[in-house]
Amino acid sequence: MNPLPVSQRSLDGRLRHLLTLEGLPASMLESLLDAAEVMVPQSMSGTGLRDRLAGRTVCTLFFEPSTRTRGSFHLAATRLGADVLGFDVHASSTKKGETALDTMRTLEAMGVDCFVVRHADDGAVAELAAGARPETSFINAGDGRNAHPTQGLLDMLTLRQRKGPDFSQLKVLIVGDVRHSRVARSDLHALRTLGVGEIRVCAPASLLPDGDALDGCRVIDSLDEALYRVDAVMMLRLQRERMEEGLVPSLESYFADYGLDARRLGLAAPDAVVMHPGPMNRGVEISDEVADGPQSAILQQVGNGVAVRMAILQALLG
Amino acid sequence: MNPLPVSQRSLDGRLRHLLTLEGLPASMLESLLDAAEVMVPQSMSGTGLRDRLAGRTVCTLFFEPSTRTRGSFHLAATRLGADVLGFDVHASSTKKGETALDTMRTLEAMGVDCFVVRHADDGAVAELAAGARPETSFINAGDGRNAHPTQGLLDMLTLRQRKGPDFSQLKVLIVGDVRHSRVARSDLHALRTLGVGEIRVCAPASLLPDGDALDGCRVIDSLDEALYRVDAVMMLRLQRERMEEGLVPSLESYFADYGLDARRLGLAAPDAVVMHPGPMNRGVEISDEVADGPQSAILQQVGNGVAVRMAILQALLG
Amino acid sequence: MNPLPVSQRSLDGRLRHLLTLEGLPASMLESLLDAAEVMVPQSMSGTGLRDRLAGRTVCTLFFEPSTRTRGSFHLAATRLGADVLGFDVHASSTKKGETALDTMRTLEAMGVDCFVVRHADDGAVAELAAGARPETSFINAGDGRNAHPTQGLLDMLTLRQRKGPDFSQLKVLIVGDVRHSRVARSDLHALRTLGVGEIRVCAPASLLPDGDALDGCRVIDSLDEALYRVDAVMMLRLQRERMEEGLVPSLESYFADYGLDARRLGLAAPDAVVMHPGPMNRGVEISDEVADGPQSAILQQVGNGVAVRMAILQALLG
Repeated sequence: MNPLPVSQRSLDGRLRHLLTLEGLPASMLESLLDAAEVMVPQSMSGTGLRDRLAGRTVCTLFFEPSTRTRGSFHLAATRLGADVLGFDVHASSTKKGETALDTMRTLEAMGVDCFVVRHADDGAVAELAAGARPETSFINAGDGRNAHPTQGLLDMLTLRQRKGPDFSQLKVLIVGDVRHSRVARSDLHALRTLGVGEIRVCAPASLLPDGDALDGCRVIDSLDEALYRVDAVMMLRLQRERMEEGLVPSLESYFADYGLDARRLGLAAPDAVVMHPGPMNRGVEISDEVADGPQSAILQQVGNGVAVRMAILQALLG
Repeated sequence: MNPLPVSQRSLDGRLRHLLTLEGLPASMLESLLDAAEVMVPQSMSGTGLRDRLAGRTVCTLFFEPSTRTRGSFHLAATRLGADVLGFDVHASSTKKGETALDTMRTLEAMGVDCFVVRHADDGAVAELAAGARPETSFINAGDGRNAHPTQGLLDMLTLRQRKGPDFSQLKVLIVGDVRHSRVARSDLHALRTLGVGEIRVCAPASLLPDGDALDGCRVIDSLDEALYRVDAVMMLRLQRERMEEGLVPSLESYFADYGLDARRLGLAAPDAVVMHPGPMNRGVEISDEVADGPQSAILQQVGNGVAVRMAILQALLG
Repeated sequence: MNPLPVSQRSLDGRLRHLLTLEGLPASMLESLLDAAEVMVPQSMSGTGLRDRLAGRTVCTLFFEPSTRTRGSFHLAATRLGADVLGFDVHASSTKKGETALDTMRTLEAMGVDCFVVRHADDGAVAELAAGARPETSFINAGDGRNAHPTQGLLDMLTLRQRKGPDFSQLKVLIVGDVRHSRVARSDLHALRTLGVGEIRVCAPASLLPDGDALDGCRVIDSLDEALYRVDAVMMLRLQRERMEEGLVPSLESYFADYGLDARRLGLAAPDAVVMHPGPMNRGVEISDEVADGPQSAILQQVGNGVAVRMAILQALLG
């Protein structure tokens, strides 16, 4: 990835934007996870936290539709007492010819303190952040194939809750469309920074990324082999358009080769945790039995998502 | 209707979900109406009620578009101090292949305490409720042709305000597309449970329901005859697609045969009340004169809708 | 314009609706500007103002899509403590055949105290206001080509902040599609009422209005000539459909003849202020250099928009 056009940190070292996990030190990731952990008990109601961001305005600025991530941020900001303005651009001014930068600056001039942005293009969120006033913060809620840092953090929080704070002995496997996945990229950044013992990747060759994205990972063709004694399996979503693009022959063959079912999960460590960023394609990446089974942390991930987003908002705006 | 896949009541008898009025005892309907009646004066502002549901999250989960019902629930929840998350599914994850159950569970894991659900399929809301955690509540905001229980309750509240608490001497007439109407089904359940003296139904044969939906009702072909000395007329909306389906020859002929105008209303009791669930097709089901006349309770119904929904939310979550 | 079907002022002279600036006395415009000016410091957070409209409900009722104006009103109302209900009609009941008046009355019956309405038809907002209860207020957020009074007021506030309170010596130039612009109409009303020394208008003949809209203005063909020593330039947005309608030969030729660039701005007074209602078509009406230059007040206009809308809401509902 190209260098960021704007620094994520202020001159005093504090986090100003959260655009990518790449380059953030382990100590910073850990203190964000600590802050999120502390918020978990209050994250479902906001009790006792409603004055934290009172008078601040958070805008969810989505250039790509996504209701679940937007909803998670909406609830996180609301439970901290912020005002939330939802701004979906596909149905809006951009059609009228306004640039994304002008849209952002207009909203900023209305008193938006923090933008939560999703965009189809790699680097688009950082570009907007580079055009903002010094006091405005940005959170990348997913840009192209590039990064989805709050998803990376919530995955780490879930892993820590299930496996303890020492990641050095863990074997973690990522399965699926790593090539097109911003989730995988942010997970890989975090897993490396937090010193996971071994990172394995399993995917059809057509869905493996180019370049150095997999540096330090073991790429293993066979899912059965890749699962052997891993402590965590991070499944990725398969976009249906991969089939239309010819990258995957069929959903059935994908599940046969790369789907996680109960038999396969038996090859992992007995207490291995199963994660998925959602929305799931049941029967494509994952069987019902595994998705709904005792080793699944999928709904715990969702709950942690709210706490992590609250911690990030607090860190940037509090 | 099939038995519910989940009980509406907890073991201690309290209401946990509101999925249908069918099967709820008169005492429970009456205590909900009493609670709503008490809330009416504060229901337009929420003054004094803002702490009732503070820290609770209500999600309007709509699989069918509807702005007015959603708006009514949004205001009811907001005025009780709840956080409200709007989640429209037609433009969302379902397109990406996620099941409705997974969408619901994801939102539940974000801390949603109560779902207000509209769905095109009969029984779909109860199915979602059956898949939820024990502490989560569901309100059916309309499922297929099956039920719309808050509409049924607000209609009963309106009837009670206009005609007094003793329903045993009342003659109530329902006119129109009973076959496809969840409003009619919920009204019929409530009218029977609350012991209305006589229930009449008037509709073209093509719009009468099969089965036992009309048990205990008098079905009368001619609207003039049906109106004779009734105390209340509940008009139903005619969906325009009934014409395309060939169930109704034309809007003009429908109005001529089943539309309520001033002359016809003169056949009812002198103080008969006119109700309509909205949105109205003026000149199709009802004339302007009647819709806007002194016997119309149509806007009173809308106002009662907010109070009824506040009472239900309070009963389920308070 | 035809006379309003409803008075904007109560019998005691207080403002009840804001439908148009036409006909409002200078003293009223000035006191609204004063109130807005006072609110500017708090308008970005609402600190200290959250009890002003507590328990009141504001509905943004948009029959035409517009996210930025709706967002500005949403934030203004929220920061005064009101509940806000967003109601977009294109995707709603109107499709089902309900009239706009019935939609409004339904929302009113749910406890909406103030409607902020945008509509494609001239006079449509005033017609809705004429059908409302006596205690309900309306703010016109843009109707057809007719009026956009809050935009007119925020433009005047910006002009006053930049040029001082005495408008009598000012030369103000409006450039562009005056014919189709509700912004221009409201600006013209306000500029005249506040006694601006000289109003100039520059546009291609095809984009000049008929009738008496330009009474008292100097219409000047050449932009270079029109700019000579003006104190303020108000650029208008060019809708792309003007080209399809044949009113403008091409965007390139429009910019060549009527676009504001740095050279041309040099013809105005040295401290002339540049305004634009947004969203901008960069390179069509205005060059990047001017839009982002030191004389541009475009983002200041946006910020003032929130303060002006807060002042109006407070005047109507407080």
